Amino acid sequence: MRLLLISNSTNPGEPYLDYPKHEIKKFLGDKPINALFIPYAGITFSHDEYEEKVNNRFLDINHKVTSIHHFDNPIEAIENAEAIIVGGGNTWHMVKTLQDKGLMEVIKKKVESGTPYIGWSAGSNIACPTLKTTNDMPISEPKSFNTLNLVPFQINPHYLDAHPENHGGETREMRIEEFMVVNQNTYVVGLREGTMLLIENSKMKMIGNRTARIFKYGQDPIELSSKDDFTYLLSTK
Amino acid sequence: MRLLLISNSTNPGEPYLDYPKHEIKKFLGDKPINALFIPYAGITFSHDEYEEKVNNRFLDINHKVTSIHHFDNPIEAIENAEAIIVGGGNTWHMVKTLQDKGLMEVIKKKVESGTPYIGWSAGSNIACPTLKTTNDMPISEPKSFNTLNLVPFQINPHYLDAHPENHGGETREMRIEEFMVVNQNTYVVGLREGTMLLIENSKMKMIGNRTARIFKYGQDPIELSSKDDFTYLLSTK
Repeated sequence: MRLLLISNSTNPGEPYLDYPKHEIKKFLGDKPINALFIPYAGITFSHDEYEEKVNNRFLDINHKVTSIHHFDNPIEAIENAEAIIVGGGNTWHMVKTLQDKGLMEVIKKKVESGTPYIGWSAGSNIACPTLKTTNDMPISEPKSFNTLNLVPFQINPHYLDAHPENHGGETREMRIEEFMVVNQNTYVVGLREGTMLLIENSKMKMIGNRTARIFKYGQDPIELSSKDDFTYLLSTK
Repeated sequence: MRLLLISNSTNPGEPYLDYPKHEIKKFLGDKPINALFIPYAGITFSHDEYEEKVNNRFLDINHKVTSIHHFDNPIEAIENAEAIIVGGGNTWHMVKTLQDKGLMEVIKKKVESGTPYIGWSAGSNIACPTLKTTNDMPISEPKSFNTLNLVPFQINPHYLDAHPENHGGETREMRIEEFMVVNQNTYVVGLREGTMLLIENSKMKMIGNRTARIFKYGQDPIELSSKDDFTYLLSTK
């Protein structure tokens, strides 16, 4: 399997999808690819607009995407895809849409057979066993919390340490601590913005200048950097 | 029906449940009450500890709570309750527990028959039709997103305007905008910390020094204060 799981599309103040584009280019290679794009996490803009936003950036790296909503037969579109790219937005709405259309298993099989997969934010979250570490508001009710299960651990995208001053709500770490009490066997990778996980040749590493925070029930959280080996997380659970 | 729906248990820097205690006392009255407490949203501490935390504060106002986990027959405990009090924590885990134990309908009937209901945070959220406006991480998968439906609108507890600097994740308002696109008929009350909604005699008002932000699809959000009438929200949808 080849996966590039990105925390966030865009760093504040930068153009859309700008910071990860060089890694996306390296991952997809030099030969121009027309990748299949899954836009279902986008809510407040159209699938066409989402596709265009992504293609504006992909122009810079000599690749393009075609959104799945253009295909009469989305299952066939997945089976024929050169690469699958899943954009961010609302995880719940995307998972419901993929489940309702019967596409979750089709994507899983296709990626497990070797087709490159790139996701950011919600698109990284659904590569995990479930959506139980999403930050998103549950605006749509999916049939199940189960997702692609391409990796055996959970990613919390946009992981952040900051907490608004004078706010009584839970910090991100407190939320993940609650997750661990109820899901004691599952590792969680708090993936800070500006970083991504690269999985290929049964190995995993992190790319980016910040550390990732690794959580497991009963253990102190640890911080791993791009110099550390993340591969052990692929054989957990 | 009589409901007191509180945004947050505790303002930062203050003792647990301190700021709303005077309103809770007014709501429950002078005669000492032993209210039934629902602790299921608490995750990282025991039901006994949660009960004790609440009772420490209720001592100040001459009332007490007994947690539902002490009763062999929780349905009977609800049916006999003088008042029902639902504490905050993780909404998902509480909703799953109430559904698994078959208690959701029992609480609804009891409160609709006139028994006072107090909730804070997750406890306010579940008074709404669904949990679709929770901020919590979906650490547990409930049978359904449907909750008590005691009011016809959604509350977003801990509503906040602040957003961590240099963070690319969605603001709270963006999350609620996504909710509205998918749930166009439902009003959302962004209930800021330090405020609460009081429903009695078929009227609703807000208590607290900050305004609430009212969202409806296709309309500009509006800010209402404790001087405004919130009653129209009870006949929406």
